Amino acid sequence: MEVELKALLDDLDVLEKSLSDPAPIHKLRSHVENLATISKSNPHKRSKVKELSSEVVDSNPYSRLMALQRMGIVENYERIREFSVAIVGIGGVGSVAAEMLTRCGIGRILLYDYDTVELANMNRLFFRPDQVGMTKTDAAVQTLAEINPDVVLESFTMNITTVQGFETFTSSLTNKSFCPSKEGSGVDLVLSCVDNYEARMAVNQACNELRQTWMESGVSEDAVSGHIQLLVPGETACFACAPPLVVASGIDERTLKREGVCAASLPTTMGVVAGLLVQNSLKFLLNFGEVSPYLGYNSLKDFFPTMKMRPNPQCSNVACLERQKEYMLAKPERDAAAKAKMEADASTAIDEGPLHDDNEWNISVVDDENEKDATKAASSSGIDTLPEGLTRELPDADEYEKEIAIASGSGETEEEDDLEDLKKQLEALNAA
Amino acid sequence: MEVELKALLDDLDVLEKSLSDPAPIHKLRSHVENLATISKSNPHKRSKVKELSSEVVDSNPYSRLMALQRMGIVENYERIREFSVAIVGIGGVGSVAAEMLTRCGIGRILLYDYDTVELANMNRLFFRPDQVGMTKTDAAVQTLAEINPDVVLESFTMNITTVQGFETFTSSLTNKSFCPSKEGSGVDLVLSCVDNYEARMAVNQACNELRQTWMESGVSEDAVSGHIQLLVPGETACFACAPPLVVASGIDERTLKREGVCAASLPTTMGVVAGLLVQNSLKFLLNFGEVSPYLGYNSLKDFFPTMKMRPNPQCSNVACLERQKEYMLAKPERDAAAKAKMEADASTAIDEGPLHDDNEWNISVVDDENEKDATKAASSSGIDTLPEGLTRELPDADEYEKEIAIASGSGETEEEDDLEDLKKQLEALNAA
Repeated sequence: MEVELKALLDDLDVLEKSLSDPAPIHKLRSHVENLATISKSNPHKRSKVKELSSEVVDSNPYSRLMALQRMGIVENYERIREFSVAIVGIGGVGSVAAEMLTRCGIGRILLYDYDTVELANMNRLFFRPDQVGMTKTDAAVQTLAEINPDVVLESFTMNITTVQGFETFTSSLTNKSFCPSKEGSGVDLVLSCVDNYEARMAVNQACNELRQTWMESGVSEDAVSGHIQLLVPGETACFACAPPLVVASGIDERTLKREGVCAASLPTTMGVVAGLLVQNSLKFLLNFGEVSPYLGYNSLKDFFPTMKMRPNPQCSNVACLERQKEYMLAKPERDAAAKAKMEADASTAIDEGPLHDDNEWNISVVDDENEKDATKAASSSGIDTLPEGLTRELPDADEYEKEIAIASGSGETEEEDDLEDLKKQLEALNAA
Repeated sequence: MEVELKALLDDLDVLEKSLSDPAPIHKLRSHVENLATISKSNPHKRSKVKELSSEVVDSNPYSRLMALQRMGIVENYERIREFSVAIVGIGGVGSVAAEMLTRCGIGRILLYDYDTVELANMNRLFFRPDQVGMTKTDAAVQTLAEINPDVVLESFTMNITTVQGFETFTSSLTNKSFCPSKEGSGVDLVLSCVDNYEARMAVNQACNELRQTWMESGVSEDAVSGHIQLLVPGETACFACAPPLVVASGIDERTLKREGVCAASLPTTMGVVAGLLVQNSLKFLLNFGEVSPYLGYNSLKDFFPTMKMRPNPQCSNVACLERQKEYMLAKPERDAAAKAKMEADASTAIDEGPLHDDNEWNISVVDDENEKDATKAASSSGIDTLPEGLTRELPDADEYEKEIAIASGSGETEEEDDLEDLKKQLEALNAA
């Protein structure tokens, strides 16, 4: 618009010089000036900021976020600018998650979707009727860039379940140009906000291969419940460790969809799930509160089930089994690191107080497997750890370990984390 | 913009006729045509619809909502167009609540706020940087009207805590021109999304006076927890029945705020609270699921406490005491209505099966006070019904009733809802 207005004014100048009476040109010029005023009064964009400021003034878009530091919730909020988050699926949950992260001032967002905006999407937050016909990625970038120009946005208009799409997906996740010093892949977290099993399995495959922590989200077809789940390859269940019923029983979900029938959706349920998902992401990235391994939302009863899911040693995903093996093999290292951290913390605590040579408070290192044992005890004593409405489709890790123990003739009382047992678990994984 | 472009073209036509060489005019005209194209490519608005359609086509903005009927969640979704909801406070929670209701196709929204949009609000959903400087009500109407032109929007740019503002507030709530046949006030629900005690007390006062059901919402100053609460005058606790500590101990909250210090806020917490609030509103209006009387959100632990709060017979709010009295006096009427409904349901059930003269399944009417007694029993047996982190500032109704019972020399075993007891409770209310 500005370019056209400038060209118009330049041409008027040229024309004015060739005329004897400049009056009509003056009139034309005033129209153009009015147009310029009108066009400027619209997109009053905010400029980028170099550093997050905690100054309490109306013009600071980060004052309310930096206040999290002063209130003792987050130790270092500014770190948020170093993080990259990939969001797969820019629908009712993904678009709102992207907007929340954008408003929080996240460093970089990678957006993946192949769909276009339709009027039928207007019953959920984010997209506007004037964006109908645009790709969801383009529309999202348009809106997000206007909201916060500090966030680096990269969009991928493609289907990650195709061979080509999957390759582009994994290579985009491993691109480290945004933060070259970072360990691991090029992103800190992947958020799955897709609406079908195939796409979830593609995200699962990519994250298992790349040792990438991710979070899954979903909303039921009747629009009144949803969930979020944290997946750490090798450490927690992967998406293939406990597949949903429809797949476990061998039915292709596409055959379940009927012509002319669409799933219901509500801006409320999707907004809540997006909020819980990004809240969990912020806790994970900025290291505050407790990151939930699984959180359900039953809106009819306002019931929020939580649970932990350990990996399935019989998982059909080969990359998951490799990550499980790595996680088991790294146990001594993790224990040593935990012990070192514990000792460092203890010595810091001692340094702060009066100096003593001995360990005055008898601080000892607690094995992090104790918690697992406690869960096992609860499980074997008949308490089912799955919340109401959830059933297991495959035997869980406890059952599997029990079978091995029985087969090898050893009792249940055997120390779980001794070398012998570790070896057996590894053998089972190798055999799978 | 269109008017200016048209004037520019007309003046070019006039100028062209006076010139010997029309070439420069042709060039100018092409610039203007480009400008017209650019300006038109922006606001592609959707037109209003007469009736909500459940047709599954991409161009139907209501298909995913009407699907709630087909899925058996909501009996009659179309009723949503008859409802009016007032939203007080268009900040981080109120604006998102308004957007959700707008996307759901609610009939009418009344918006109240006196504040203007600042860059410092950009860390929450809804407002855009180009709206900085506008009043929140104007900016909200701009965005909401674009999203869904079917919703009737009425905005009130004023402070409801002033004498004049309070009068305008109550008279706007009682205006029945939108749906003249409706019983009660002119709105179906009031949502309080304000950030201070004074404004909450103003909403409480208006709703107690007008017998208006409302829902309260709030987010903590450290941005990591929030709540929603249903308030039915006379039936549940009003906002003055259990005032927060800071007021109970006589400190004006304004003295607690320090210069240059602002509360923290997060788009996640506010988005979740807005989602829970509107979900509860939809359940209340469209009659599905269970409406939560109170739902808390502790985001650090993903803990969601619920509870019920009955009115305080010692409440300082005179209108609340009047509503409590009315509610108690209407008990025989409620019981009769419940009995009639039960019998009607039972006879329908019998009509559907084979005809019998007798009551084959021994269907009997259950007194709706039984639940209350159960709660009382739990309370008197030492189980505190308040969830973790919440303390009572005033004695609750149970304690109060116990005191009366002791004073009158009768034991705790006395039937609560007999005439004698009812009379005593009324006397206590009259004395307050």
